[in-house]
Amino acid sequence: MIIDKYNERAKKINSLLCVGLDPDLDKLPERFKNLDNPQFEFNKYIIEETHEYATAFKPNMASYEASGSKGLRELEMTMEYLQEKHPDIFTICDAKRADIGYTNELYAKAIFDTLGFDAVTLHPYLGREALKPFLDRKDKGCIILCRTSNPGAGELQDLEFSGKKLWHIVAEKVSEEWDYNNNCMLVVGATYPKELQEIRKIVGDITLLVPGFGTQGGSVKDVMEVGMNSKHLGLIMASSKAIIFAENPKEEACKLCEEIRKYKGV
Amino acid sequence: MIIDKYNERAKKINSLLCVGLDPDLDKLPERFKNLDNPQFEFNKYIIEETHEYATAFKPNMASYEASGSKGLRELEMTMEYLQEKHPDIFTICDAKRADIGYTNELYAKAIFDTLGFDAVTLHPYLGREALKPFLDRKDKGCIILCRTSNPGAGELQDLEFSGKKLWHIVAEKVSEEWDYNNNCMLVVGATYPKELQEIRKIVGDITLLVPGFGTQGGSVKDVMEVGMNSKHLGLIMASSKAIIFAENPKEEACKLCEEIRKYKGV
Repeated sequence: MIIDKYNERAKKINSLLCVGLDPDLDKLPERFKNLDNPQFEFNKYIIEETHEYATAFKPNMASYEASGSKGLRELEMTMEYLQEKHPDIFTICDAKRADIGYTNELYAKAIFDTLGFDAVTLHPYLGREALKPFLDRKDKGCIILCRTSNPGAGELQDLEFSGKKLWHIVAEKVSEEWDYNNNCMLVVGATYPKELQEIRKIVGDITLLVPGFGTQGGSVKDVMEVGMNSKHLGLIMASSKAIIFAENPKEEACKLCEEIRKYKGV
Repeated sequence: MIIDKYNERAKKINSLLCVGLDPDLDKLPERFKNLDNPQFEFNKYIIEETHEYATAFKPNMASYEASGSKGLRELEMTMEYLQEKHPDIFTICDAKRADIGYTNELYAKAIFDTLGFDAVTLHPYLGREALKPFLDRKDKGCIILCRTSNPGAGELQDLEFSGKKLWHIVAEKVSEEWDYNNNCMLVVGATYPKELQEIRKIVGDITLLVPGFGTQGGSVKDVMEVGMNSKHLGLIMASSKAIIFAENPKEEACKLCEEIRKYKGV
């Protein structure tokens, strides 16, 4: 199972920290801005500063696409670097894709094969049938949006169908029907710890990708207390800007990792 | 309003045809495969063969991303070409994006500014608050997924909330609350003409992007009879593979355009 790669790394370094590689050009420190490949060079710096605490790295596609094909090239260079230097660290393409089946075959090719990611984030709106080209890839991870971290997430996700909210139904469907290759995970925002607790009950040991710490206000304690699975794993604790744009990224990654270790209790 | 650009073109050439520019490398005719920029050269050929019938061109991002940064570069070249040669033809980025607000700012930059598209397709799952960076762009179009064309679309979209299906709620929300800049449209698959008829009643004159003709089996007659708005417009009839990979793309585009004109009745 692809999640074994994540779990082995998590056990080896005793961490659940996922560092977001979102090198928005406007926000890069001055010393990177005039380099030939500023986003790649910044990523290399962040990877070397934080890798000892990182179970996963998660580039968000938007940061690269905003710079066009040049940005996408720097993401390719980043992935080549990671595969060479840190092949045991789990890689997540935060792309939030989903189209009809035929088109998803091309997205799966783009993200899993051309770029070489271990996993991708996906929208559930078109249903399981459309996501088949992703779900069929036993060798890769499919991380389905369930309860997102944004303040307005409830507008559709809290709609109730026969007493169950939409996020609840997505959690059930993924764990009962979509996860036929044991390669599914769910996105649940750190900003909604109550929902996270319910989702953990619904999905058993399935791993949850949890964004929304730092600038968005989620609490490590709240998430860890209710979110771990029966193996004291099952969480991918994602932080991006609070680490990578800190004065000292290594120190921030270390601090967050220490906090995770404190509540992990193993 | 951005839709004026589409409507003016539609009136000028008496068409509602949108040609999908999805130059999947594996499917290109042999004579393009060994060129330096095969996807761009194929697009140029398709654009010149079909533009007299085309109100819009709609590249699907997956076709380009499957070739990595090289593919995205060829999409950039395609957009430069369109802006220079056919600036009055509406351009839709079929990207099906949506993330939290901050990230959507970067996607809006990537698609509207870096690439220069007139409109983009978007997932509704994160709600209006997250889509604000798109919805706020009065100069650009936001095409929200409502009822998608794929066979399994109903899995989530047909869930009923107080007697209304999810696609119905999305249609209502978009027309009543999200469309505050008169720049919203909806995606409704040609494969679901009954739902399309209901959606037309819910949303008034809002324009619908309708994929699913040709290989997916939707009928021009069924869609046109129930889908037009009060101005005998309101439809973007999208066809891709059936035109671009035909022996004679011009003939196929002409045929589909003639069929549209027959039912347009103006």
